[in-house]
Amino acid sequence: MKSDIDRLMDEAGLDALLATGPAAHNPHMSYFTGLIHLTDGYLLKRRGQDPVLFYRPMEREEAARSGLETKNLDDYDITELLEQAQGHRNKAIALRLNRIFDEYGVIGRVGVYGRIEVGPAFEIYRIATRLNPNVELVGEASTESVLSRARVTKDEGEVERIRRVGEITISVVEDVANFLTAHKVEDGVLVDRNGDPLTVGEIKRRVNLWLAMRGAENPEGIIFSLGRDAGIPHNAGEDTDQVRVGTPIIFDIYPCEAGGGYFFDFTRTWCLGYAPNEVQAAYEDVREVYQEVYQALKPNVPCRDFQIMTCEQFEARGHPTICSDRRTEQGYVHGLAHGVGLNVHEAPWFRREGSDDLLLAGSVITVEPGLYYPERDLGVRIEDTVWVKPDGILETLVEYPHDLVLPMPGVE
Amino acid sequence: MKSDIDRLMDEAGLDALLATGPAAHNPHMSYFTGLIHLTDGYLLKRRGQDPVLFYRPMEREEAARSGLETKNLDDYDITELLEQAQGHRNKAIALRLNRIFDEYGVIGRVGVYGRIEVGPAFEIYRIATRLNPNVELVGEASTESVLSRARVTKDEGEVERIRRVGEITISVVEDVANFLTAHKVEDGVLVDRNGDPLTVGEIKRRVNLWLAMRGAENPEGIIFSLGRDAGIPHNAGEDTDQVRVGTPIIFDIYPCEAGGGYFFDFTRTWCLGYAPNEVQAAYEDVREVYQEVYQALKPNVPCRDFQIMTCEQFEARGHPTICSDRRTEQGYVHGLAHGVGLNVHEAPWFRREGSDDLLLAGSVITVEPGLYYPERDLGVRIEDTVWVKPDGILETLVEYPHDLVLPMPGVE
Repeated sequence: MKSDIDRLMDEAGLDALLATGPAAHNPHMSYFTGLIHLTDGYLLKRRGQDPVLFYRPMEREEAARSGLETKNLDDYDITELLEQAQGHRNKAIALRLNRIFDEYGVIGRVGVYGRIEVGPAFEIYRIATRLNPNVELVGEASTESVLSRARVTKDEGEVERIRRVGEITISVVEDVANFLTAHKVEDGVLVDRNGDPLTVGEIKRRVNLWLAMRGAENPEGIIFSLGRDAGIPHNAGEDTDQVRVGTPIIFDIYPCEAGGGYFFDFTRTWCLGYAPNEVQAAYEDVREVYQEVYQALKPNVPCRDFQIMTCEQFEARGHPTICSDRRTEQGYVHGLAHGVGLNVHEAPWFRREGSDDLLLAGSVITVEPGLYYPERDLGVRIEDTVWVKPDGILETLVEYPHDLVLPMPGVE
Repeated sequence: MKSDIDRLMDEAGLDALLATGPAAHNPHMSYFTGLIHLTDGYLLKRRGQDPVLFYRPMEREEAARSGLETKNLDDYDITELLEQAQGHRNKAIALRLNRIFDEYGVIGRVGVYGRIEVGPAFEIYRIATRLNPNVELVGEASTESVLSRARVTKDEGEVERIRRVGEITISVVEDVANFLTAHKVEDGVLVDRNGDPLTVGEIKRRVNLWLAMRGAENPEGIIFSLGRDAGIPHNAGEDTDQVRVGTPIIFDIYPCEAGGGYFFDFTRTWCLGYAPNEVQAAYEDVREVYQEVYQALKPNVPCRDFQIMTCEQFEARGHPTICSDRRTEQGYVHGLAHGVGLNVHEAPWFRREGSDDLLLAGSVITVEPGLYYPERDLGVRIEDTVWVKPDGILETLVEYPHDLVLPMPGVE
C-alpha cells in the first residue's frame, strides 16, 4: 500500500518516481491523484518526501482537488525550451523534465511510470538521460516495479471501493439472470414477447446500461460467450448469437468505478433450463477445484504454488493442463488468479513467467479455475474477487451463488 | 488515412512500425485491429507490406476478427527466452522482439507506438536496440509521428463512425436540455417534484446512463460546470453544485464508440431562464468569432493562422488572449480547435508549440472559441465537430442550435 512506497524505493535503489499522463485510466497516476479530471500531468515522488503534481494551467483546480502539492507546468517556458531545442519537440520536453529535476533536487535513479503513448516518451526519456549526468531514468519490469509492488496490497479504503464496485456488479448480474429467465423459449431459443430471439448483443447493451445506471464504467467490455465460444477463455461472444437453453454460457464481467478507478472481476457459468451431463461434470470438477484451492490459499506462499496445486487438482480429475503442456488449448489453460485493483489484471501474478510473487495479506485477488473444451462446445469458469485480510483469512468481497443451472419456466 | 501510411513511412525514413498493447482505448493499435477484445498484442507493419497481428493464444479468435494476418506469440518460447535472459523479464521480452524482427526480415528504423505502461517498454526497447545491430527503435514526436499523420485525415467510413457517435451525443444533449427545463424553480434553484435541488452529480449520472443506452461510452467524463467553474476551461464541475437559473453553464460532452473507438466532441453554453447582460455579451462575441472563423477555415493553411485569427477577432472585441499574453487566465485562453478521431484530442494541432500542422481536406476537427472570466463567474464556449470534406468545404457533422438561453416555464 501507499505507506510502503518509501521502503520499496529504498529496496529498489530508486531515488524518485515519475508518473506521467492523464489521471483517468492511468493506474499509477490515479493511485496518487484520485479520480480527478486531469488530461495530462507529471507526478514526481522523491524518496522520503510527499509527491508533487505538475499540471496544465487550464486544469489548476482539478489538480488542486488531488490534495497534493501542485506546480504549474507553464512555469517552464516551453517556447524558450523549443528555441533551445531548435524546434525539436521531444528535446524541449526532455529539457523541461531536466529543469524540473534540477529545481526539485532530483539526483540518482528515477523510475518512470504511466500508461501513455510510448513513442514520444521513449525518445524524451532517452534524450533526458543523455543530457543529464545526474539522473538515470529507469524502466522496471512490470512484475517488479515499486508501484506495482506497493499496489499489490490494499488499505481498507481501497478494499471498500473494490467491494462497492462488486456490489454494483452483482446487482447487474442478478438483473441479467432475471432478464434471461423471464424469456420464453421456442425451439430451444430464448425469445421476447414478440417472438424475436434474444441475442448476445442485446444482453451486452443492457449490461452497459445497468452498470452506467449504478455509477460504474465498463471500459473493457464483458464476455458473454456460448458453447464453443465459451471454450476459448477470452472469446467475448458474438453479438448476433442467439441465446439457447442447455448451452454453457460464460458470463465474465469486470467493470470499474466511473472515471477509471478500481475494478471488480466476476464470472459465472450458466446453463439455462438444464445442463447436459458433460457440462454438469465439468462444472462439478471446476467447483470442487475452486473449493479445494480456496481452502488452501494463505499468505506468504508463492502464488505459483497455488497454480501448480490447481493443475494437480485438475489432472487428478483427468484433465490436461498447461502445467503438463504449456500450449494446450484443452482442459485448464490459464492462471488460477490475479490481483485486482486500479487494473483489472495486476500483481500478484499466479502464472506469469519469471514472476516469483508471494501471496500477501492485504491483497485483493480473483479465484477463477476453469475448464475449456472448444471442440466439445464447452467452457466452464467460476470466478470471485476475494480479499486476503490482514489476518490472512480470505473473504469473498461479494457473495453470489455458484449455481450452474438457471431454471427456466417450462424447460427441464 | 490508412492508404497514406507507406508514403508517410517512406518520408519519415521508417522501415517498419510496431504498435503494442490492447486494442481498446489504444488508438494506434485499434486503428489497425478495429474494436476487438485483445488485451495485449503486437502489430507489426513493414513498409509496403500488410500488417501482422501477434496475439496471445487465449485471444486467437478475437485476433482473427481483425481480418489481419495473425501469429501466435506463444510460438516464441518465453520460458526458453527467460532462461537465456537469466530470469530478467524485460530482457526476455526484448529477445522475443528481436526474434520477431529476424523472422519477419525487419531491418532498419522501426517506429514504436501504443498507449501502454511506459516503464517496462522503455527498458525493453533500450535492451532490444542494444542487442540488435540491425534495428533502431524510434520514438517520434507525438505531433509528427507517421501514424498521427496518417490518422489526421479520415476516410468516409471513419467519418460516418464519428457522425454516428455525434448523433448519439446530440440526442443525449437534447435529453439533458429537456430534463433541465422540466424542473421547477425555487429561489433560483432547479428542484424536482419533491422540492429537492437538482445537482451537477445527478446530471452527470444521467448523461452516463443515456450514453450507455445508446451504445456510447464516456471514458473521459463530461464537463458540466457553473458560473465561476465555467470560467476555467477544464474544470469538470462540482457534483454537489446546485443548478441555478441565470448562471452560465458550460456543458462539454465527448463520448466514444463503446469498446474504445471514435470520439465526438461538443460544447454548449446555456443559461436557464434568462442570461445576465454580461453573459449575453460574452456569448455574442463568442458566437460572432465562431462564425467569422468558421467562414475562414479552409484546407492547406497552417492551423496556427486560424488560432492567430481567432485571437485577433477576440482582441478586436476588447478581450485579452493567449496570443498577447501566453499565461493569461482571462479572455481567450485555449486553442481554437483540435482533430477528433480515435483520440478525443489529436492532430491537427492549432496551438501546440512546435507544431506546423496544415489544415487538410479529410480532417475532422472541432471549432471551439470561448471566453473565460473566472473572477466574474463567467465562461462561454461553443464547440461543434466539423469535417473538412475532400472538396475543402466544411460540414458540421451533427447540427444543434447554438442558443444560450434555455427557456424555463415561469422564469424570465
